[in-house]
Amino acid sequence: MSLEKASSIQNDKRFSREHLLSLYNQVRAFSHHLVDPLEIEDFVIQPMESASPTKWHLAHTSWFFETFVLEKFDDSFQSLHPQYAYFFNSYYLQTGVPFTRAKRGLLSRPTVKEVFTYREYVDDQVRNFIEQCDDSVWEKASEVVEIGINHEQQHQELILTDLKYLLAQNPLLPTYKKTVNVDGSTPSDINWISFSKGIVEIGNEGNEFTYDNEHPKHSTFVQDFELADRLVTVGEYLQFMEDDGYKRSELWLDEGWSAVQAESWEAPLYWFIKEGVWHMFTLSGVQPINKNEPVTHVSYYEADAFARWKGVRLPTEQEWEHACGAQPIEGNFVDNDLMHPVAASNKEGLKQMYGDAWEWTMSSYAPYPGYKPLPGALGEYNGKFMANQYVLRGGSCATSKSHIRKTYRNFFHADARWQFSGIRLAK
Amino acid sequence: MSLEKASSIQNDKRFSREHLLSLYNQVRAFSHHLVDPLEIEDFVIQPMESASPTKWHLAHTSWFFETFVLEKFDDSFQSLHPQYAYFFNSYYLQTGVPFTRAKRGLLSRPTVKEVFTYREYVDDQVRNFIEQCDDSVWEKASEVVEIGINHEQQHQELILTDLKYLLAQNPLLPTYKKTVNVDGSTPSDINWISFSKGIVEIGNEGNEFTYDNEHPKHSTFVQDFELADRLVTVGEYLQFMEDDGYKRSELWLDEGWSAVQAESWEAPLYWFIKEGVWHMFTLSGVQPINKNEPVTHVSYYEADAFARWKGVRLPTEQEWEHACGAQPIEGNFVDNDLMHPVAASNKEGLKQMYGDAWEWTMSSYAPYPGYKPLPGALGEYNGKFMANQYVLRGGSCATSKSHIRKTYRNFFHADARWQFSGIRLAK
Amino acid sequence: MSLEKASSIQNDKRFSREHLLSLYNQVRAFSHHLVDPLEIEDFVIQPMESASPTKWHLAHTSWFFETFVLEKFDDSFQSLHPQYAYFFNSYYLQTGVPFTRAKRGLLSRPTVKEVFTYREYVDDQVRNFIEQCDDSVWEKASEVVEIGINHEQQHQELILTDLKYLLAQNPLLPTYKKTVNVDGSTPSDINWISFSKGIVEIGNEGNEFTYDNEHPKHSTFVQDFELADRLVTVGEYLQFMEDDGYKRSELWLDEGWSAVQAESWEAPLYWFIKEGVWHMFTLSGVQPINKNEPVTHVSYYEADAFARWKGVRLPTEQEWEHACGAQPIEGNFVDNDLMHPVAASNKEGLKQMYGDAWEWTMSSYAPYPGYKPLPGALGEYNGKFMANQYVLRGGSCATSKSHIRKTYRNFFHADARWQFSGIRLAK
Amino acid sequence: MSLEKASSIQNDKRFSREHLLSLYNQVRAFSHHLVDPLEIEDFVIQPMESASPTKWHLAHTSWFFETFVLEKFDDSFQSLHPQYAYFFNSYYLQTGVPFTRAKRGLLSRPTVKEVFTYREYVDDQVRNFIEQCDDSVWEKASEVVEIGINHEQQHQELILTDLKYLLAQNPLLPTYKKTVNVDGSTPSDINWISFSKGIVEIGNEGNEFTYDNEHPKHSTFVQDFELADRLVTVGEYLQFMEDDGYKRSELWLDEGWSAVQAESWEAPLYWFIKEGVWHMFTLSGVQPINKNEPVTHVSYYEADAFARWKGVRLPTEQEWEHACGAQPIEGNFVDNDLMHPVAASNKEGLKQMYGDAWEWTMSSYAPYPGYKPLPGALGEYNGKFMANQYVLRGGSCATSKSHIRKTYRNFFHADARWQFSGIRLAK
Repeated sequence: MSLEKASSIQNDKRFSREHLLSLYNQVRAFSHHLVDPLEIEDFVIQPMESASPTKWHLAHTSWFFETFVLEKFDDSFQSLHPQYAYFFNSYYLQTGVPFTRAKRGLLSRPTVKEVFTYREYVDDQVRNFIEQCDDSVWEKASEVVEIGINHEQQHQELILTDLKYLLAQNPLLPTYKKTVNVDGSTPSDINWISFSKGIVEIGNEGNEFTYDNEHPKHSTFVQDFELADRLVTVGEYLQFMEDDGYKRSELWLDEGWSAVQAESWEAPLYWFIKEGVWHMFTLSGVQPINKNEPVTHVSYYEADAFARWKGVRLPTEQEWEHACGAQPIEGNFVDNDLMHPVAASNKEGLKQMYGDAWEWTMSSYAPYPGYKPLPGALGEYNGKFMANQYVLRGGSCATSKSHIRKTYRNFFHADARWQFSGIRLAK
Repeated sequence: MSLEKASSIQNDKRFSREHLLSLYNQVRAFSHHLVDPLEIEDFVIQPMESASPTKWHLAHTSWFFETFVLEKFDDSFQSLHPQYAYFFNSYYLQTGVPFTRAKRGLLSRPTVKEVFTYREYVDDQVRNFIEQCDDSVWEKASEVVEIGINHEQQHQELILTDLKYLLAQNPLLPTYKKTVNVDGSTPSDINWISFSKGIVEIGNEGNEFTYDNEHPKHSTFVQDFELADRLVTVGEYLQFMEDDGYKRSELWLDEGWSAVQAESWEAPLYWFIKEGVWHMFTLSGVQPINKNEPVTHVSYYEADAFARWKGVRLPTEQEWEHACGAQPIEGNFVDNDLMHPVAASNKEGLKQMYGDAWEWTMSSYAPYPGYKPLPGALGEYNGKFMANQYVLRGGSCATSKSHIRKTYRNFFHADARWQFSGIRLAK
Repeated sequence: MSLEKASSIQNDKRFSREHLLSLYNQVRAFSHHLVDPLEIEDFVIQPMESASPTKWHLAHTSWFFETFVLEKFDDSFQSLHPQYAYFFNSYYLQTGVPFTRAKRGLLSRPTVKEVFTYREYVDDQVRNFIEQCDDSVWEKASEVVEIGINHEQQHQELILTDLKYLLAQNPLLPTYKKTVNVDGSTPSDINWISFSKGIVEIGNEGNEFTYDNEHPKHSTFVQDFELADRLVTVGEYLQFMEDDGYKRSELWLDEGWSAVQAESWEAPLYWFIKEGVWHMFTLSGVQPINKNEPVTHVSYYEADAFARWKGVRLPTEQEWEHACGAQPIEGNFVDNDLMHPVAASNKEGLKQMYGDAWEWTMSSYAPYPGYKPLPGALGEYNGKFMANQYVLRGGSCATSKSHIRKTYRNFFHADARWQFSGIRLAK
Repeated sequence: MSLEKASSIQNDKRFSREHLLSLYNQVRAFSHHLVDPLEIEDFVIQPMESASPTKWHLAHTSWFFETFVLEKFDDSFQSLHPQYAYFFNSYYLQTGVPFTRAKRGLLSRPTVKEVFTYREYVDDQVRNFIEQCDDSVWEKASEVVEIGINHEQQHQELILTDLKYLLAQNPLLPTYKKTVNVDGSTPSDINWISFSKGIVEIGNEGNEFTYDNEHPKHSTFVQDFELADRLVTVGEYLQFMEDDGYKRSELWLDEGWSAVQAESWEAPLYWFIKEGVWHMFTLSGVQPINKNEPVTHVSYYEADAFARWKGVRLPTEQEWEHACGAQPIEGNFVDNDLMHPVAASNKEGLKQMYGDAWEWTMSSYAPYPGYKPLPGALGEYNGKFMANQYVLRGGSCATSKSHIRKTYRNFFHADARWQFSGIRLAK
C-alpha cells in the first residue's frame, strides 16, 4: 500500500475503527437474527454439495476472521480449537487442505451450541483487536476486516438459500418464518429503455468497498441496445411454459437441453402442481404462484431459453452496469425481512435493478482487462472461479442493501437454480 | 390361526397381556437409555445409505406398532400426523410407497422432540390397546406386538452401529460414552471341537418368539467338521495383515478383491495408524488395538480371506447351529453396557457363541425348505432379502440378551463392515 | 498325482494323445465355424462389461493353451507376441495383471487377421506338443489340455451370447445366421414328478472330465419335492406379464424389485412390442414370440418372481441333480445349429433337462463340503467366484453336447439376462 | 436472400457449379486419403463419448449432404437406407431424434464397406444435383453445399484426433502412418509484439465462406496489449512441469485444479515416461519429446495455469483476431501430411498464427452482438453450443489450409485435451 493511501485511510471514516467495529457488530448480529427461527436440527444438514449446513456458514464466517485477521495480525491470538481451521476452511488451499466440501453434512459435532461459543470467542478477539491493535497494524488489517464483513454478508444470503433448499426437500414443507404477503398489482407490459453505442467505463476503483473482481475500472465498447424496464414476471414465464417452452429443443442451449432431460425440469425450482394449480415453496411456506411477482429460481439455461422464446436475449454485464447508471440503491432486500420477491411498481424507467432477484447476464465470468487478484490466500476469493460460470447482477431479496452496488459481480454455474435468480431481457 | 393355538395363547405367559406390556415397556425404555448420551445434532445425520439417523430409528420402530398393531387392530386409532406413515416406513411396499431410504438424512423435521412426542403418543395408544382390547382381538394382535418388540430390539442394535459409523466420519472422533475398559488376558490357542456327520435338525418351531426365517424346523445333513472354540482375535488378524493378507489376491474371492482395491481396505473398519501404532475408533473413543479381544468390523470377504490364509474355512449356518446345541445364552451383550467385544475366557469348550461379535457363516441367506413368509406386509420382514446376503449367527456386544437364540439368523451383504461382525473358523 | 492314477492315465483313452488331439482339433475348428458368418466389424466391439469382443474370445482361448500348457510344459516355447499374455488374460491374477476387462473393446489391434494368425501359431505348437512331448510331461499336461478344450467350449457359448447382445444393440437388428424355424406344438400342462426325501449323493469324481467345482462327491439330504417335467414356456410367462407380474412388488425379491425399477424391465431381455405384438430378437433375426418354446433370457429375479406368482419355487441344485438321475444327455444343443430353444415334446417324464435353456436354481454358488481348488493359477478358474452368484444347470441351445453333464455347475449373477437362461419349477 | 445477392451468386466463382463441384470432389477424396492407412477394425471403436468411430464420421458427413441438400432440394431423391438418417445424425434435433452419441461405438453394422457404398451413393446424387438442378434451386442450395464441404473438413480433423485418441488407448501403441520427422532448430526467446488500445472491427461478412458464428462484423474495444510472437514450446512447458506446475494449486483455476486431481494430470495428454525419459505418442508412433516444437494436447486449464506461472495470460479472441491482421494463411496444415506440429522459424514478427496448434483464448464462446443463427436445423450448427466452452483460434496441423481464416472460431470445453491445442501468451 502506498504511503499516500495509508495516510488517507487514517482519516477515512470508511476505515475508522469505530465505523468498522459498528459494522462488524451489526453484521455479526444479523447472522444470529437470520437463524433465530431455526430448530437445532435445521443447522446440521447439507442437502446437496453446493448447499452447506447453517452451522457451517456460522462457523466458516468466524474462521475467516480468525484466519485472515487474528492469525495474521494478532500475535497473541490463540485458536479456540486446533481442528476448527481444518473444518471451517471453505476452499482456501493456501491456508491448508480444507475438509471435503461434500462431507460438511456428516459432522454432528461441533454442536450448534459449540459453534455459537466459537463465534463469541472470535467476536471477543476481533473486537479487542479492532479497538486495541497498533495503528501500523490497523492500517493493514482494516481492509481485511472490511472484507470479512462483506464475506459474512455473502454467507448470510447463502444461509437463506441453502436453508430454503433444505426445507424444500422435506415433504412436510416446513416454514422458515411467516412474513407479510405482498401480492402487488399487475405490472404494465415491458417497456424497453434504449442506450446508444459507445465507449463506456466499467468497474470500480472508488472509495467504497469492492471486491477485486470489480477491478480495474476500464473502457469497453457497447453496441446500441435496449433493456427491459423490469424483471420477467411469473405470469410471463407461465406463458413460456404453456407454449411448451420446456419441450422445444430449439429454444435451448445444448447443455441446457441436456439438463432439462436429465433433471426433468418443467418449471422453475420449487414449483409444483397441487390440485391442478401451480404452487411454489417459499421460506414462508407453500403458496399458489403469484403472476405479478418476478420469476426466480431459474437457471441461466432457462433464462436464456425464455429470452430466445421472446425473440430477444439477456444483457451483457457491461450493458447492465452501463444502463444502471446512477440509480439509487433501493429495492426489496433482505433488510425488508420478506425473503421473497415482490411485483414491480409502475413508475417510469428502469425498475428492480437492485433487489428482488439476481439477474442473469450472458457474460461468462472472466477477469477484467488488467485484473490482479489480491496477494496470498485472499487471492483465491474470486479469481480461481473465473471459468464456466455466468455473471449475475443487482442482488436479490436475500441480499443486504449495504452489500450491493452497481459494479457488483455475482457468479454461478449455468445450471444453478437455488439462488433467487431471475430474468431481465435485452435486445 | 387354529382354534387350538388360539386357546393355548390365552393360557400362555408368552402371550399374556401383562407379560407383553412389561416387555414393551422395558424395550421401549431401553431405546431411550441408548440415546441418552446424544446431542440433538447426532440424531439427524445419515452417514451412508445403510446407516439411518437415530431419530429415524426411534420413529420407525413406533411406526411399526402404529401400522401393524394400531392401524390394523384398533378401530378408534387416529394417527398423530398423516405423513409419518410415509416418512417412517422402511421398506414395506404393501403398506404404501416409503420415503426414499437414501434421503432419510435430508429431514430436519420432525425434530427430535417431535419424534419423542410421537413415541409417547404411540406408547399411550399401545399400552391402552394391550390392556383394553377385546380378547378376540388380542388373540390375533399379541403375536404382532411381540414382533414389534423384537423389531425394536433389532433397531436398537442399528442405532449403535449407525451412530458409531457416523461419529467415526468426524475428525473430532467424538465419544458416545465412556465405558469400562476390559482388556482381558491372552486367550489360549484355538482348540478345535469335533462334530460327526449325520442328519441334524435345524430351525425352530418351539414356543418362544422366532422370526419366520427360522421356520420350518427341518432335517439336513452335515459332514464331519470341527469348529474353533473361540472367535478370531485382533492379534491373529494382525498376523494376517502383516503377512500381506490385504495384498495377496489369491486369498480373496473375486468380488472381495475388487472391494479391497476399490475401497483401499488394509485393515478392519475403524482401524487407523496413529504415531506408528494401530488404533481403533470405538464408541468409547480411540484406543490402541487390543490383541486379546475378538476382531470385529470385518466383511464376509475379509473373514473368508482370513480363513483361507489359515488353510481353513468359515462354518455353514447349519454347522454353527448344530454345534451350538444347548449352550446357555450367556455372553457379552448390550446389556453389559460395554458396546465393545471382550477377550474370550480360557474355559473348556465352545466360547463366545453368543455375544461379542456376529459370526459370518459361509451360508448364503436362503429360505429353509418349506419356508412360508408371514401373510401380508409383514411377509416382507425377511423373505424378500433372501438373495445375495450371508447369514451371521450368535449376536454381538450390541445385541440384547433377550433377543438372541440358537436359531437366530441375521444377514448382511458380503461387503458390510459397520456391524460388530467377527470370525469363527471351521474345517 | 499318485502313481496309480498316472499309470491309469497312460492306458486311458480319455487321456490318450490321439483322443485329445482329435478333440482339440474338433473344438478349435468349431470356434471358427461359429464366427464364420461374421463381418470383421462384429469381432471388435464390447457392448457391455460382461460381453467381450469375439476376437478377444478367440485370442483368450488360445492364450489359455499358451499359458497353462505351452509356457508351463514346453521348454522350447516362444510366444508369438510379448504383449498377448497381457491382453488376453481374463482374470488369472497369479499369471500377471490382466488388461482391464472393461476396456477390451478399445483395442482395434491386434486385428482379426492377426488373432487368427495367433490361433494358428498356438495350434501348431499345441499339436506338436501333444504329439511329441515326453510321456512324463504328457502325464501332467494331458489334464490341462483337457481343461483347455472344455474352456474353449465355454467361450464358444459366450461368443454366441455376447454376439447376440451386441447385435441387439443395433437398431438394424442384424441377423447372425438364418436357421430352421422350429415352432413345435403346444406342450401339455406341467406334470409334477415326485421325489422322496433322503440322503443323496451329489457331485462327481468319475472318470470323465469335470471341473473342480463338482468335487468332492458327497452326501446331502433332500426333502420330499416335486419337479416340473418341462421348462416354463413363453406362453406361461406371458400370463405372468399380463397379470402385472412386473408391477407387483410382493412377487419380487428386494433386489429384484430394485432391478425392475432401475432397468425398467417389463419383459425378458430381447422382447419388444412391434405393431402391438410382442416380438423377440434372435440370432436368426426378429420373430413374433412363440408361446410354445421355453422362455429364456430371464434373470434369477424374474425366474424367482414367476415361481412365486405360480405359488411354487425354483429347485435347489441338489434337487435338480438328484432328479436328473441317469437321463441320457440329449436335447437341443449348439450342435443342432439352431441357437434357439424349441418346444418340449409330449413324452412322459422329465423333459428338457439338458439343452434349450440353463435352468436357474435357488442355490447360491458355493463350494461343496471339502472342496479344494486346483493348485496354482488354475485354482482361480472357479473357486474365487463362489459368492453372490446362483447356480444354473443343464446347458442350453448354445452349449456343446459334449460339454454338459448331470453334475455341471454354471453360475451367473442374479441380474444376468444375456445367457439362454430359463425356468424349471419345483415345489 | 435478396435478389441482389441472388444475382451476384450467379456470376460468382465462389458459388459456381464448377467451382463447388471441384471442391466437393477434392474434399470428399481427401477423407478417403486420410483413412487409407487404417485397418477395418480401426473404423469401428468409440474410445470416449467425444471421439466418434471413423466410419461414423465418414457416414455423418454424407448424411449432412443427404439431409440438408438432397432431401431438401432434390424432389426425386431416394434415401439408400431408411435408418441411416437416424444413425448418422449428430445433434440436429430439428431433423429428428439422433442415435445416442455415447453409443456410436456399439454399431458393428453398417460395415465399413457399406459406409463406403453409402458415400458413393451420396456422391453420385450430389454430383448429379450440382450439375443438373435448376438455377433457381441452385441459388438456394449452393450455400448449403458450401457448408457441407466445410463441415466435412471439420470432421476430417476429428477423424485424425479421434483416431489418435483411440490408438493411444492400445498398449501396442499402433502407428497411423510414418511421416517425415521435423525436429526444427531451437526457437529464439519469445518476443512480445505490441498493439495499442482502440476500437477494432471483429468478425466477417466478406465474400468468402464463413460460419454464422463469425457474424456480424462489429466494433469492439481492445486495451493496450502485447502478444507473444510464437507458440509456447515443449521445452518451456517442461520447465513449468519441473517447477511443480501440476502440484501448485495457486496456479490453477478451481475447476482446473479439480481436473488435475481427478484425472491425475501431470503432463500433457499422450506424454509418458519411458526409461526415465518423457516420450509422447504421435500419429507416427512414440517419440521422445522434442523441446523445439510447440506444446499441444493441453487443456484450457493447463494453458491458463502455464500463463499464470509465467506471470502473463492468454489473449482474448478479439486481441488474437486484431493482432492477426492481414497475415497470409500459411503454416503447418494437414496438407503437409505431417499431422504433428513443428518448431517455429526465427523470422521476425508473429509466427505460427495459423496451423500447428489451435490457440486457446480466454474468451468464453458467446454470440457476437447481433448474432442470428441460420434458420431451421442448420441453426443448430453453432449457436446452441455457446455456453461453457472456450474459443480457439488459428487451426492446427490437422486442419486443412483452405478451411481456416482469421475470423474462424473453434471451441471446446476447458478440459478437452485430445485436439491439437496449444498456447500463445499475451499480456
